[in-house]
Amino acid sequence: MKPIQVGLLGIGTVGSGVFNVLQRNQEEIRRRAGRGIEIACVADLDTARARAIVGEQARVVGDAREIIANPDIDIVVELIGGYGIARQLVLEAIAAGKHVVTANKALLAVHGTEIFKAAAEKGVVVAFEAAVAGGIPIIKALREGLSANQIQWIAGIINGTTNFILSEMRDKGLDFDVVLKEAQRLGYAEADPTFDIEGVDAAHKATIMSAIAFGIPVQFDKAHVEGITKLSAADIRYAEQLGYRIKLLGITKRTDKGVELRVHPSLVPAKRLIANVEGAMNAVVVHGDAVGTTLYYGKGAGSEPTASAVIADLVDITRLIEADPAHRVPPLAFQSHTLREAGQDLPVLPMAEVVTSYYLRLRVADEAGVLAKVTGILAGAGISIDAMLQREADEVGGEGSTQTDLIILTHDTREGDMDAALAQIQGLPTVLAPITRIRKEELNN
Amino acid sequence: MKPIQVGLLGIGTVGSGVFNVLQRNQEEIRRRAGRGIEIACVADLDTARARAIVGEQARVVGDAREIIANPDIDIVVELIGGYGIARQLVLEAIAAGKHVVTANKALLAVHGTEIFKAAAEKGVVVAFEAAVAGGIPIIKALREGLSANQIQWIAGIINGTTNFILSEMRDKGLDFDVVLKEAQRLGYAEADPTFDIEGVDAAHKATIMSAIAFGIPVQFDKAHVEGITKLSAADIRYAEQLGYRIKLLGITKRTDKGVELRVHPSLVPAKRLIANVEGAMNAVVVHGDAVGTTLYYGKGAGSEPTASAVIADLVDITRLIEADPAHRVPPLAFQSHTLREAGQDLPVLPMAEVVTSYYLRLRVADEAGVLAKVTGILAGAGISIDAMLQREADEVGGEGSTQTDLIILTHDTREGDMDAALAQIQGLPTVLAPITRIRKEELNN
Repeated sequence: MKPIQVGLLGIGTVGSGVFNVLQRNQEEIRRRAGRGIEIACVADLDTARARAIVGEQARVVGDAREIIANPDIDIVVELIGGYGIARQLVLEAIAAGKHVVTANKALLAVHGTEIFKAAAEKGVVVAFEAAVAGGIPIIKALREGLSANQIQWIAGIINGTTNFILSEMRDKGLDFDVVLKEAQRLGYAEADPTFDIEGVDAAHKATIMSAIAFGIPVQFDKAHVEGITKLSAADIRYAEQLGYRIKLLGITKRTDKGVELRVHPSLVPAKRLIANVEGAMNAVVVHGDAVGTTLYYGKGAGSEPTASAVIADLVDITRLIEADPAHRVPPLAFQSHTLREAGQDLPVLPMAEVVTSYYLRLRVADEAGVLAKVTGILAGAGISIDAMLQREADEVGGEGSTQTDLIILTHDTREGDMDAALAQIQGLPTVLAPITRIRKEELNN
Repeated sequence: MKPIQVGLLGIGTVGSGVFNVLQRNQEEIRRRAGRGIEIACVADLDTARARAIVGEQARVVGDAREIIANPDIDIVVELIGGYGIARQLVLEAIAAGKHVVTANKALLAVHGTEIFKAAAEKGVVVAFEAAVAGGIPIIKALREGLSANQIQWIAGIINGTTNFILSEMRDKGLDFDVVLKEAQRLGYAEADPTFDIEGVDAAHKATIMSAIAFGIPVQFDKAHVEGITKLSAADIRYAEQLGYRIKLLGITKRTDKGVELRVHPSLVPAKRLIANVEGAMNAVVVHGDAVGTTLYYGKGAGSEPTASAVIADLVDITRLIEADPAHRVPPLAFQSHTLREAGQDLPVLPMAEVVTSYYLRLRVADEAGVLAKVTGILAGAGISIDAMLQREADEVGGEGSTQTDLIILTHDTREGDMDAALAQIQGLPTVLAPITRIRKEELNN
């Protein structure tokens, strides 16, 4: 069957991410969605750049309305940004009966009511997972995952630029202006950073979350918006002495009187997970009356993280168009006829084939040559050592000899090789007790 | 329209949570789902206890098959647990054309293939958000939110009992046996804790996640399962000295050769967010090729957190049965005709009505009476002080007078009251510079 035909309006950072991820993961995405998804056409004012990105894989046009008018296009992805032409094109796409996916938080926070109404009347979907917190599926969590709850409050680090600046101010004790320049040099802040540092971008996102959480319309005009430009390194230091970190939070909260909707720098207890979200990362805490506190963390911006959210929306819409209703979302994520047989292609590996790193604790005789023997066996098995900790001798054995703990951290190793090496080491007469072996996971990529 | 009719098989801890949350939040849930959801009938061997929970609100029967045979029931919720009768009843419910919601990870990890096949043939949904990590919508994130990605690995703290024990062992330097007894006394561990402490429960959950992440069948029999019973306080201490925490992780990872699927104690760098997940809380880290690293955190067990996930599945199925396809999931979570008008019922509050706590930094003359005046004004405005930090005088003014920073943390206050008090304090001649005011959010409930 013909793949779902997608038209892209704008192919900058996010658009090229969408194009690349759809190409790279096309097989998995087709298995999940029940049908292929293909960028058929791209509209960008810079047609030369667009052609350089998509090559022969998609048609490039200079006029977005060519895509909207094309009857073969099923879904229009708006990645232009801003409230102006983007609003016009989204409304025209809806009027033309296209489903729309957008990453445009400014547009939805300000014109959401008009856009959702138009979509409802036309019977099409407007999806916007990428509009809040980039790759983190927070819209889906709020809209579907937590639908049992009366949501009580949401507090999020939802602007990576300002979180990067605050992290740097704290780490290095520098003032705002200095760190902003550094952030601009590194590409974490734009040449005109106003929307980020004044809290406007975070307020757009908080506005959208408040609507979803509380069943109210988007009301950006009611949001209190305060940025980080006036924060001093001194306050960050004092806060730290009192056990707090300063974060720019987007907050929305249900109260008896109404809804709080505000963005401003906030002191947060240092022991909370969200206080430890550093650099350009995002995190959103959601408190529901049944579920309690939950937290969602990940990259809030960037080409492929944002593309991840845009494509998730494309898959949702494709599953809706395509699958029989009872299996719109397959129980195991992949359409059931595409599930691999057990063992086929992707077998579950026996433990000997697993690669990980290790913590080893050895009870050894405290005498010359022990360490050389142990490390010699490890080296012989191709196991390299990351760190060692040798305790002072702490116990006197039967004949006046002393014992000690030897702690070794290794680099990545096949478990089978480790098993063999440990069997050898265990056999040494100077190893006095069963070796303790705990696996170590860096979890860093 | 008649509410969706749900039959509950088993009404223990989770079942009563489902009943209570559905009652308490029925209006919001109906607005989200597009139709009411009602527990019509409950089957439990202990009919007296069941009646005590549901009162007159639902029929109570002793025989689960009465529910399965009842043509009015749309969805059967299985909360019996285990592989035995639960498997039989789930298959019978599917055969009877009922949608099924279950929290039973053991059942799905072992018999999932059979159950999903039966459901597909019958055209019904089997939903199981509650089976992994309780209230955290991790199944939805993996299946829908991250569908653009080639998932590379998942590592999760997915058993609260063992995480509670490990947290206590580390905090108090105690050995496993001692802490287990304490956990049993507090209700964090069951009388027979084998499935938790030996890693079996975590392996059930990791098995389900591996299937969803990689498009393979559930293969619990291939999982490597290792618990925490052999961990010593010494290893936790050594790990800490090396910059690591020890956590029981459920890990599944894609490699060139196949899929790793394993549960065992793991050293994790102390700076990772997941290393700081304490007590009975759960967290799952998912690494996708496009999105990078994401993390999902919340309560992994308990009556209402688990009910939150069960009801989210009920809402999903109701939206599927009920709504017109284009609006199965409404863009703003609530069905659009139930969205409140702006300002109605739940207005967005002006900032003066917001209640929060504050950090204040005042540059004051270092002389007698200043502190009394400042605190007097705050007290007069009904603002109570949580903590104060007074720096030593650090600067000599024009006429030999000295200045200092006075830092005040307040308890919760109406922003309007704070504005008024600060205006007064700013007017004091001994307050020498504009007051810095940063809001403080405890984010603890």
